Amino acid sequence: MLEKNQNLNQLRDQLRNFVAEREWQQFHTPKNLASALIVEAAELLEPFQWLKSGETEELDAQTRTAIQHEMADVLNYLVMLADRLDIDLLAAAHEKIQLNAQKYPVPLARGSALKYTNLK
Amino acid sequence: MLEKNQNLNQLRDQLRNFVAEREWQQFHTPKNLASALIVEAAELLEPFQWLKSGETEELDAQTRTAIQHEMADVLNYLVMLADRLDIDLLAAAHEKIQLNAQKYPVPLARGSALKYTNLK
Amino acid sequence: MLEKNQNLNQLRDQLRNFVAEREWQQFHTPKNLASALIVEAAELLEPFQWLKSGETEELDAQTRTAIQHEMADVLNYLVMLADRLDIDLLAAAHEKIQLNAQKYPVPLARGSALKYTNLK
Amino acid sequence: MLEKNQNLNQLRDQLRNFVAEREWQQFHTPKNLASALIVEAAELLEPFQWLKSGETEELDAQTRTAIQHEMADVLNYLVMLADRLDIDLLAAAHEKIQLNAQKYPVPLARGSALKYTNLK
Repeated sequence: MLEKNQNLNQLRDQLRNFVAEREWQQFHTPKNLASALIVEAAELLEPFQWLKSGETEELDAQTRTAIQHEMADVLNYLVMLADRLDIDLLAAAHEKIQLNAQKYPVPLARGSALKYTNLK
Repeated sequence: MLEKNQNLNQLRDQLRNFVAEREWQQFHTPKNLASALIVEAAELLEPFQWLKSGETEELDAQTRTAIQHEMADVLNYLVMLADRLDIDLLAAAHEKIQLNAQKYPVPLARGSALKYTNLK
Repeated sequence: MLEKNQNLNQLRDQLRNFVAEREWQQFHTPKNLASALIVEAAELLEPFQWLKSGETEELDAQTRTAIQHEMADVLNYLVMLADRLDIDLLAAAHEKIQLNAQKYPVPLARGSALKYTNLK
Repeated sequence: MLEKNQNLNQLRDQLRNFVAEREWQQFHTPKNLASALIVEAAELLEPFQWLKSGETEELDAQTRTAIQHEMADVLNYLVMLADRLDIDLLAAAHEKIQLNAQKYPVPLARGSALKYTNLK
């Protein structure tokens, strides 16, 4: 496992140290981490909210840096939550893509933004 | 870079293929990916919303699997957004931890859930 | 209608003026308003994220005022979105309660936090 | 107060009955209500996530009804949270508009989607 997830595992270890030094484990219940994660996801959405598409040409350097920091926050909470629940993130991601491939078969889903429950 | 981020890069490549086969790049503006990400973050929060802490003993097997799938969705959208904006997620995460270490110095932050703007 | 929704209608009118004076209608597509609404909902969740329950005794005066402002933002975006989509909020709320009463019949739902799909 | 907020107050009373009959007050801490609210806000955003603007012509009847139900859920949780924290929603909304009028003075904000911290 260490081999396969090497770098996310290093990030996990760095976060463990960061949290332990500050004695924050007491606040980091799975529920609270999931709440913190969505708060960061909203801070990530905020700079896009009035834009047309958020493509690079709509983003100035300051906004781009802010977006990068918010994406980092989302990843960090995701890694801490996965650690707390003993979930292998990369394995879960690969598995979810397999499931989505079944829900969205190429012949039905090509070029369509419909939810799988509406595909036919 | 490929060396350093090896496994997230493999996930990114798998997602590129998944999206390209379905011709979904047209829907995947940064803004739309950030919206999709928060929708998944909410689906991740949902099973916790009426629980006390969401520790393992409060989660049955079905809920735990659902949580794992939602975490995978969040990671997948995060990787797709990073790819679209050409952001190195692991580097951004490491950098953000350094910034947070300055905002939350151990002597002030130890055992406290206050926001850094209220620490003193 | 004016009679029935009198005060939400007054709020809607005040918001229409506020937006028109600033020529912001161009940004207020339904999609953008729904994005802005969830960003405010996250700002509302943020002060609760590390608390146990968020009951009054856990909230100082400053936090309570912040919560009140975020609730106002959520309501304001909700009213603007309803106006844009020509939806009667109070009528929709009453109708939804009727639907939920069918999904959560008292004998099954009493004292349970289960989702209706898991009630039996 | 009953006079001024008459209809939101009627909705509040209907929700109080709904919750009391099901003995759900035990789950309805302010924190949990704020979590439930953002989960509903995400369900409201979901049908818009791959659309360009979400204007009426992009919404079919089924989607429009779903949006209406999600808006109702957001309002219902907002009213329950306001009740729990003893906040007058309409008064808070009016006050917030006054504050925003100061943060976004017409001459600076006209035609601009910038955050007030970036206006000059």
